[in-house]
Amino acid sequence: MNKVYVIKIGGNLIDDPKELAAFMKAFAAIKEPKILVHGGGKTATAMAKKMGLPVQMHQGRRITDKANLDIITMVFGGLINKKLVAQLQALHCDAIGMSGADGNIIVASKRPPNPIDFGFVGDIRTVSGKGLVQLLNTNKVPVLCSITHNGKGQLLNTNADTIAAQVAIALVGNFEVYLRYCFEKAGVLEDLSDESSVIHRIDSEQYQILKANKKIMGGMLPKLSNCFEALQNGVKEVHVGGPNLLYGSETLTQILL
Amino acid sequence: MNKVYVIKIGGNLIDDPKELAAFMKAFAAIKEPKILVHGGGKTATAMAKKMGLPVQMHQGRRITDKANLDIITMVFGGLINKKLVAQLQALHCDAIGMSGADGNIIVASKRPPNPIDFGFVGDIRTVSGKGLVQLLNTNKVPVLCSITHNGKGQLLNTNADTIAAQVAIALVGNFEVYLRYCFEKAGVLEDLSDESSVIHRIDSEQYQILKANKKIMGGMLPKLSNCFEALQNGVKEVHVGGPNLLYGSETLTQILL
Repeated sequence: MNKVYVIKIGGNLIDDPKELAAFMKAFAAIKEPKILVHGGGKTATAMAKKMGLPVQMHQGRRITDKANLDIITMVFGGLINKKLVAQLQALHCDAIGMSGADGNIIVASKRPPNPIDFGFVGDIRTVSGKGLVQLLNTNKVPVLCSITHNGKGQLLNTNADTIAAQVAIALVGNFEVYLRYCFEKAGVLEDLSDESSVIHRIDSEQYQILKANKKIMGGMLPKLSNCFEALQNGVKEVHVGGPNLLYGSETLTQILL
Repeated sequence: MNKVYVIKIGGNLIDDPKELAAFMKAFAAIKEPKILVHGGGKTATAMAKKMGLPVQMHQGRRITDKANLDIITMVFGGLINKKLVAQLQALHCDAIGMSGADGNIIVASKRPPNPIDFGFVGDIRTVSGKGLVQLLNTNKVPVLCSITHNGKGQLLNTNADTIAAQVAIALVGNFEVYLRYCFEKAGVLEDLSDESSVIHRIDSEQYQILKANKKIMGGMLPKLSNCFEALQNGVKEVHVGGPNLLYGSETLTQILL
């Protein structure tokens, strides 16, 4: 079976032009079929501020009201997505920028308003593996922003890590799937203040121990939960690491069942 | 040969939710392959104002500096494009939103800075008819915003009327091409203050007379010039009219060679 790479890049990487350029070069050089998934970084927050829009958070998670959904649609779906696509095209990589609405690739449901109303946030219902395979088979490189739709005309803000995992899962059966989470750290750190404390392998058992000892917390918990879900559903290999994860870095975290 | 419709919608139509909804319903109902082309309307200008960005104009034409290009990319490529796509998907029309960078569909050159520097404005060099045919053949409905790229990583603001005409021309040979310009008037008016003064047919000869008599001027001149270029290059039929042009309105302007 052919390989496919599903690679998610984090906001801090998007915000660093030099790191991003190096990453994009390595991404474009991957010979196998590939998909890039991105969120937004600080641009959306900066834009909301410029326009005098308050960004409401609940326990570190953004509440997406209508005005903020518009900002996200503009910044993630427009500015960042189109710039990434233009950069990849310049590297002779035939990128095609998409939200989950485009080609009906990702359908989500608006999260129920109880106990907390997160607004226009979508939980993924279906990913069209067929639609993605069709694009990959014509040598297109989908660049997916973290926006989905409900199939009834409503766009929804959706976690980019979850999109990457669900897209990876949707391709199992057609491809041998390699999932990569690239962010600003070299991997999952045992000590957040020590860049050299990368944990090289985490399996389910170790994950429970690290969680219990509060070595892993915050945003890393849902990210790792996505990693395990991908592996449980047939994804071949999951790595978490820095942008140089693409060019053979030995310091990265491999997630194992 | 199969028919294809290339339909461009103007900004005032995009800004009117009721008219837009009726238009979208009629567009989705077209059984033949089809492409939607859109610009932006007042949203981009309003957004620039909100962010305290001055919009510079030269003889009614926008000068696109870097900050304004970002706004256009956000509003045309993000907000408007994704909303149109989500609306069409809700109508079971398998829309896929694109800029000219996506799939390398439209390559343009930055307009030379002399005599006037319009900034990041692109003049179309090539439209990939092949890329569009590939999408149409898989029953996708491309929704093109008025942004192109230079193939070297730079996005460019490009006139939506011209995109529609050049896209139509690129499909000649694969399809019998029907080009439609939908805007807020019922057609080309002989008297701008009289909505009932629609000119039903304009051929090249009549066009020269109308121009000489200053019956047609301003933004209508480049629009009609695009219409004639399309016809001269094999496009089968060109209509200019209101949104009801799609549902059999008899008041419209047909452009003829």
